[in-house]
Amino acid sequence: MRELNETHNPTLASWVVSANQGDTDFPIQNLPFGVFRRKGSSEPFRGGVAIGDQIVDLPRIAASCLVSDQAKQAAEAGGMKNLNALMALGPSAWSALRLALSRLLRDGAAGQALVGSCLVPMNDVEYDLPAHIGDYTDFYTSVHHATNIGKQFRPNNPLLQNYKWVPIAYHGRASSIGVSGQSFRRPLGQVKDAETTTPVLTPTRSLDFELELGIFVGMGNRPGDPIPITDAEEHVFGICLLNDWSARDLQGWEYQPLGPFLSKNFATTISPWIVTLEALVPFRLPFTRETADPQPLPYLDSTLNRASGAIDIRLQVGLLTVGMQAAGAHADYIAETSYHHAYWTMAQMVTHHSVNGCDLRPGDLLGTGTLSGPGTNQAGALIELTAGGKRPVHLSSGEKRIFLEDGDSVVLRGWCERPGATRIGFGECWGTLLPARL
Amino acid sequence: MRELNETHNPTLASWVVSANQGDTDFPIQNLPFGVFRRKGSSEPFRGGVAIGDQIVDLPRIAASCLVSDQAKQAAEAGGMKNLNALMALGPSAWSALRLALSRLLRDGAAGQALVGSCLVPMNDVEYDLPAHIGDYTDFYTSVHHATNIGKQFRPNNPLLQNYKWVPIAYHGRASSIGVSGQSFRRPLGQVKDAETTTPVLTPTRSLDFELELGIFVGMGNRPGDPIPITDAEEHVFGICLLNDWSARDLQGWEYQPLGPFLSKNFATTISPWIVTLEALVPFRLPFTRETADPQPLPYLDSTLNRASGAIDIRLQVGLLTVGMQAAGAHADYIAETSYHHAYWTMAQMVTHHSVNGCDLRPGDLLGTGTLSGPGTNQAGALIELTAGGKRPVHLSSGEKRIFLEDGDSVVLRGWCERPGATRIGFGECWGTLLPARL
Repeated sequence: MRELNETHNPTLASWVVSANQGDTDFPIQNLPFGVFRRKGSSEPFRGGVAIGDQIVDLPRIAASCLVSDQAKQAAEAGGMKNLNALMALGPSAWSALRLALSRLLRDGAAGQALVGSCLVPMNDVEYDLPAHIGDYTDFYTSVHHATNIGKQFRPNNPLLQNYKWVPIAYHGRASSIGVSGQSFRRPLGQVKDAETTTPVLTPTRSLDFELELGIFVGMGNRPGDPIPITDAEEHVFGICLLNDWSARDLQGWEYQPLGPFLSKNFATTISPWIVTLEALVPFRLPFTRETADPQPLPYLDSTLNRASGAIDIRLQVGLLTVGMQAAGAHADYIAETSYHHAYWTMAQMVTHHSVNGCDLRPGDLLGTGTLSGPGTNQAGALIELTAGGKRPVHLSSGEKRIFLEDGDSVVLRGWCERPGATRIGFGECWGTLLPARL
Repeated sequence: MRELNETHNPTLASWVVSANQGDTDFPIQNLPFGVFRRKGSSEPFRGGVAIGDQIVDLPRIAASCLVSDQAKQAAEAGGMKNLNALMALGPSAWSALRLALSRLLRDGAAGQALVGSCLVPMNDVEYDLPAHIGDYTDFYTSVHHATNIGKQFRPNNPLLQNYKWVPIAYHGRASSIGVSGQSFRRPLGQVKDAETTTPVLTPTRSLDFELELGIFVGMGNRPGDPIPITDAEEHVFGICLLNDWSARDLQGWEYQPLGPFLSKNFATTISPWIVTLEALVPFRLPFTRETADPQPLPYLDSTLNRASGAIDIRLQVGLLTVGMQAAGAHADYIAETSYHHAYWTMAQMVTHHSVNGCDLRPGDLLGTGTLSGPGTNQAGALIELTAGGKRPVHLSSGEKRIFLEDGDSVVLRGWCERPGATRIGFGECWGTLLPARL
């Protein structure tokens, strides 16, 4: 795990004034990475780092002579059309670049005019996916989600026997992953009602969101070489928000015996900013197991993982209907939870994924699975929040929802805060459901 | 579907003498695409076309002034480090290049010396994956396999209710796909025996092969735009052999509820040559359903698919142990079947995959799933051939196998033949199991 260093100092302020406002997601203690260009331009997409309401343009930093050696090399790698080359460089390069940027952006730093010329206002940009995602794997790390959703699909057997031993996961679809702002048509698929013997092809009637985090792999491993849990976090570049849109009626009919397919692969949305593990150091928590639960097998256990395997990332889901938008209203926040409720840690995910020799590559994406917490309003999907449709979600507009309706937008938010540390945020992850193509 | 044309003429012979031998996989009627370079060289990998025991070097053809216009453009696209750009061009480009090469390679063609200088002997080359595989999807199109394997995992419920309605599929792992000649360590994973309550981490005790075909997507579709079944084959570039190595003990413990993961993602091996759909035209067969089976839903049905949705690709699995190799023996062929037994066609796979708007991209790979036929010796996996371990496979060396042992190599072969057409082949797909890393 990364260690606390001068970049975490809560007394640091930036000469970028917007970075010092209490509600910013991007103070100088955060410095997340993304890929951007000026909106509507034909500029190449390239890597950048968020600071307040500005973006540090990495190719310009690399060319500026403001940073040297390892940080310059990292800025060059990060300045390409995606962050894969930077991801491949490993933690010491990421850390060197982050430290160099922290020093350049601090109150009183020299060269502010030159650094200022490397800033692009966030309001003027559009984002691309931060990485070429070679493979996308989605885990199932919330025992609360597994139990809640298990009840819908298998009322008599909600939590399967393997759950508390195996960090369950499946391969997802990389092609349909989009960046915040993604809109997609309501998918068609086969649905079979309980009363009929024949399925029909129909637009899904139960389009749901799933509140997840996305974990980007940094350095990969060679085929056949597992990543031990003591090294696992060295292979993680950082974390973003992820919405794993799901069509529940398609899922129920198709998922046996090989898992979800068309019910998930039409769209997955991630936030543009990847928060580094280094920025998250102040918010780590012990990873614990209930006394009644089995301890993880030795390959999934380590002193470090027990001491600080969890992270207290607060998460919210907002819903904005067409009606609310027309009335100028903001999204209603309908669920709130924290990543620290997860049953399996990030390190356990990486180690389990590679224990059979499977190779992870820089830019691969691991979803956490829906991060439902133990409470009723901590559920990360409508199917759980509505108890399988029995209890509609009521919105401030007077509308209610069992599942999403055409035109609905969902926004995920995430942030970390605790006394003695500066609040950092993940930005937002927006997606919009369009009517079906008929 | 492509149509019969002059490239299929069985009376055509080539001035490349090896292409006219009765046992060649690569007569002038085949002309499959792959990616190669001289063995052990630092040459760039580039696209080529097999003819007899030679390979047509596509960049040299493109530069040679021997072909013009559309064929030249296709040869340039195919001459890159992978075939993705050629795949994206679509059937008329593929067909133009194939026709131009057929004319250049025929007996009596002009410019033989110049074309001869564009040939590289197959014996001198090494292969790379023919495409950058953005996403790999594995289907489950053999009802015989689904029933046989269902009996192992769910004795009371082998064939699930959805099977005859839904072309079942799941997402596979792209990173661990390798080309023929791939070797990989016996994977470790969690295994739980029926008698115990606690799983253990162990090298798999039940490493199996799966005989499949791999279907490469040519042109993609835009997100949200399904591919109708009448257009589906226009999006298919061609077909290769595919071995979906599987660890059955890992699979049994991990696969509920989200499908296979570590039991499959350590290695998948494909053959180097992609046989085009055009070359396969003479071997198409009607796609039929038993009277007792439901007809496909309308989106999975078309006149063309009924008339010629199936393809009679003969398939064989060979096994070569360390002992057999030491004794100079060849592989024993332990199973033989045909692709025409599949329950779902290639067009149905493409259309189902995109019916929800999921975008397919050039170079995406669709596995057919294990292609077991109805007979006992037509099964495409050891778990089926041995009836779940009850009936070992006996080899000519006197050895026997329930599952694979360290050092075993598996070879898949495929070919098409019928009276009135020239036999074409798929080459071979080899893979070798190495001992576990301990």
